[in-house]
Amino acid sequence: MRTRPLKVALLGCGVVGSEVARIMTTHAEDLAARVGAPVELAGVAVRRPSKVREGIDPALITTDATALVKRGDIDVVVEVIGGIEPARGLITTAFEHGASVVSANKALLSQDGAALHAAAEQHGVDLYYEAAVAGAIPLIRPLRESLAGDKVNRVLGIVNGTTNFILDKMDTTGAGYQEALDEATALGYAEADPTADVEGFDAAAKAAILAGIAFHSRVRLDDVYREGMTEVTAADFASAKQMGCTIKLLAICERAADGESVTARVHPAMIPLSHPLASVRGAYNAVFVEADAAGQLMFYGPGAGGSPTASAVLGDLVAVCRNKLAESTGPGESAYAQLPVSPMGDVVTRYHISLDVADKPGVLAQVATVFAEHGVSIDTVRQQGKDGEASLVVVTHRASDASLSGTVEALRNLDTVRGVASIMRVEGE
Amino acid sequence: MRTRPLKVALLGCGVVGSEVARIMTTHAEDLAARVGAPVELAGVAVRRPSKVREGIDPALITTDATALVKRGDIDVVVEVIGGIEPARGLITTAFEHGASVVSANKALLSQDGAALHAAAEQHGVDLYYEAAVAGAIPLIRPLRESLAGDKVNRVLGIVNGTTNFILDKMDTTGAGYQEALDEATALGYAEADPTADVEGFDAAAKAAILAGIAFHSRVRLDDVYREGMTEVTAADFASAKQMGCTIKLLAICERAADGESVTARVHPAMIPLSHPLASVRGAYNAVFVEADAAGQLMFYGPGAGGSPTASAVLGDLVAVCRNKLAESTGPGESAYAQLPVSPMGDVVTRYHISLDVADKPGVLAQVATVFAEHGVSIDTVRQQGKDGEASLVVVTHRASDASLSGTVEALRNLDTVRGVASIMRVEGE
Repeated sequence: MRTRPLKVALLGCGVVGSEVARIMTTHAEDLAARVGAPVELAGVAVRRPSKVREGIDPALITTDATALVKRGDIDVVVEVIGGIEPARGLITTAFEHGASVVSANKALLSQDGAALHAAAEQHGVDLYYEAAVAGAIPLIRPLRESLAGDKVNRVLGIVNGTTNFILDKMDTTGAGYQEALDEATALGYAEADPTADVEGFDAAAKAAILAGIAFHSRVRLDDVYREGMTEVTAADFASAKQMGCTIKLLAICERAADGESVTARVHPAMIPLSHPLASVRGAYNAVFVEADAAGQLMFYGPGAGGSPTASAVLGDLVAVCRNKLAESTGPGESAYAQLPVSPMGDVVTRYHISLDVADKPGVLAQVATVFAEHGVSIDTVRQQGKDGEASLVVVTHRASDASLSGTVEALRNLDTVRGVASIMRVEGE
Repeated sequence: MRTRPLKVALLGCGVVGSEVARIMTTHAEDLAARVGAPVELAGVAVRRPSKVREGIDPALITTDATALVKRGDIDVVVEVIGGIEPARGLITTAFEHGASVVSANKALLSQDGAALHAAAEQHGVDLYYEAAVAGAIPLIRPLRESLAGDKVNRVLGIVNGTTNFILDKMDTTGAGYQEALDEATALGYAEADPTADVEGFDAAAKAAILAGIAFHSRVRLDDVYREGMTEVTAADFASAKQMGCTIKLLAICERAADGESVTARVHPAMIPLSHPLASVRGAYNAVFVEADAAGQLMFYGPGAGGSPTASAVLGDLVAVCRNKLAESTGPGESAYAQLPVSPMGDVVTRYHISLDVADKPGVLAQVATVFAEHGVSIDTVRQQGKDGEASLVVVTHRASDASLSGTVEALRNLDTVRGVASIMRVEGE
């Protein structure tokens, strides 16, 4: 074994960073044996240097992240700050100084992945980011390496633990959205400002990263259609149950039927209770991958949290250190397929639509005509009436999102339709 | 991209090999883009050259596998023959001639993995074998690379599709073992001679491979305790149901509580219906991994079949080809921890024991005394009597397998115990 250690700079020492530092210290011998050389924590950049950080030598702490990255003797930079800047600048500076980078930064990767990969390649170093998607669950490496000889057609997953906790709570207790969110916040599963989670921004960033890798193309956050789950109601769960379904916030990346384009989207959807994703409880994550030869694979585990995310960071750290020792680099960006990302209107799926309608003869015929005129074929209709009001639940066959939008717009213009109570996509069948 | 192709020799062209050849031909452009150079099928060694092989140039076919491997221009040898010889000799010869090897050979790897890894390292080439365990499911790479910075404590999995199909059938239809086996055979899920599957040899080979990688130690097939599932009865399933459990043939690799040794075993076991492995249906495989930082991960998918296994082979082929181009090698054997493998007697788990006893007062007291004398603590007892005969079902707390064996031997010697109807371990709680 080489005795000269590989030097690691840690940027950020919060929930994930402190766990990375702890494991690097307590498992130093294991890491050295697995890498083939000692791995030394050479510096830790933080915002609040006065905070007590158990187990970390105070001499390693600095507030000057840029100087740490520029030191010249750093082999690997671990970036767990998050956000766009200063993370982006620090990563680029690290590359320029010959350091490989391990990052957990989904926001940055989903926005600037291509440029960062290009910079890493230019400087002959690695950029690894398993921790950016679904915490400890190995996903990036299986997609990028294990399935490198296969053709991935679909990635369908629960990639946000906060929203899965809330939806699971609504499903099992009948609670409304706000009540379930309050509980998630109290238990620490949701942040004080839950926007990034509940509006689907976090999941959309992960969808962009997964789609890019799965389809060997460039997919950015802006390419991902996004709907949050704040408008999912207890009534929606009741409707889902009647269909033998539950509701999950899904990230869905698909290759079009003709293979010439891809789509990526995040939205709440009904999935059958028999689907393995339906039984993913609490804050767990799980991702289904469908490939030509492999068939259906599922990856399941804790999608967030300090320790699980640190596990993913450290797995990348070992790989990047091995590459450093071998003076090689791992697989870089693979975007050769250059498949364009189609808009949401091109997505083809099934829909569950609840309408409030007047309870009089001929309404169903009117509604059915609107569906037919827009080329959306109806699978089932359920009508329920009371006191002159009625509800009509329509489940369609597969149709394009554009046709469905046209249908809904026309339905809203019917005198006999009082309102569109909910529209939900049905996936995983 | 490099224009000179990497040359691949394929040894074996059965269910898996023909699919590897087909995908290499039909997806040549994708593979080239992902590797960074064209990947050319340079020769295919078969036993029956006269067989028509659609899509494979007849000029590539040879019966002389040794000559193919020795040709001198082969970059990668794909071994999908299976068995010990001639596979072992051919792989060794390949290494000597500078070729990396991708293998799906669980029998060989579980018996001679250490020697083969040493030979690969000596010649500066790769030995990859994702396809040897659980078909298309990425397991070797996640354990070897994604979790390289973590400490794995337990691997618990369904790694044989044939036996899972049979047990699932028994569970859902109430069929007996023979009836379910006959159906598996008729549907092609079981081979004409099902011994390797139903007696647990196949699963034991996979357990040895997984344990070695998970614990960074050497675990051979001989180290794995093995019980088949041919004696599981409909009555066992009825007992399992009463406990809220089902029965699966599990491969279980564990680090001892003190961390100083490991165990590996394959046997039928009851697991709670709430455990994710309980809902793995048909011929699917799934593996649970528990690690210090990552927590509980699960990997699920098709564990066998031509296409899924080919997917795993091709993923390895791409990795090995990339390494060849970079003039580097991937991670080799990691056995630095050198943890010894403890015998089955040291395994600690819970037990479900059914006894046929005389239906008279004092029997339960006698039986309970035997358990107490052997230090096995009883969790629950259920007594059922009719016509002078009675059955006694005992579920224990956690105890060592040695204590349990002692208990059972002593029970057999009791006059009031007519017989031990079944002993089954209870896992996954």
